[in-house]
Amino acid sequence: MSLDPEIAARLKRTGDGLVAAIVQQHGTGEVLMMAWMDDEALHRTLTTRRATYYSRSRGEQWVKGETSGHVQHVREVRLDCDGDSVLLVVDQTGPACHTGEHTCFDADVLLS
Amino acid sequence: MSLDPEIAARLKRTGDGLVAAIVQQHGTGEVLMMAWMDDEALHRTLTTRRATYYSRSRGEQWVKGETSGHVQHVREVRLDCDGDSVLLVVDQTGPACHTGEHTCFDADVLLS
Repeated sequence: MSLDPEIAARLKRTGDGLVAAIVQQHGTGEVLMMAWMDDEALHRTLTTRRATYYSRSRGEQWVKGETSGHVQHVREVRLDCDGDSVLLVVDQTGPACHTGEHTCFDADVLLS
Repeated sequence: MSLDPEIAARLKRTGDGLVAAIVQQHGTGEVLMMAWMDDEALHRTLTTRRATYYSRSRGEQWVKGETSGHVQHVREVRLDCDGDSVLLVVDQTGPACHTGEHTCFDADVLLS
């Protein structure tokens, strides 16, 4: 099984074949994290509703929370107008960030 | 003038030197769009509070709303834990999407 060709045809990938996945908490609207997806990660996310990404450093798919238990149940997936990012609306279990922070954007404020 | 070297050192860029910029409406929390930034676009955004991105197709920086008037006043910029994306909290004038949609994620629902 692989990604629906009609969806695959709408993707505009980076040089290494990825789109940006923005992850938002259902209800609160908080942006929890950003991760990368290749076609297979998007396919798995759409078919399992368990958020699955692609690790650039390890070169493989990973299921969010597979080791930490901090899984994401995916309620919605939307593709943007030019096909280079998807928005996932999720129910997050536990903190979203591997550092233990609630979101991956909590620690480093560049401008406020 | 160029990007603060202490910030530049924390960025983890794509193969073509970019980070993903996620744009969120202040107050409502809506995710409006995703665009790309090179170091110069981030520098301009931080110093002018006018959201500025990098066009992969044109190979140059662009100021959001420069032609449409649909500008973004930047209230906050946050860098994520692994340095490959920034979150901009903005006040958006007019629709965020060049198609006229309110957000760039309104038109193409892959899963609901």
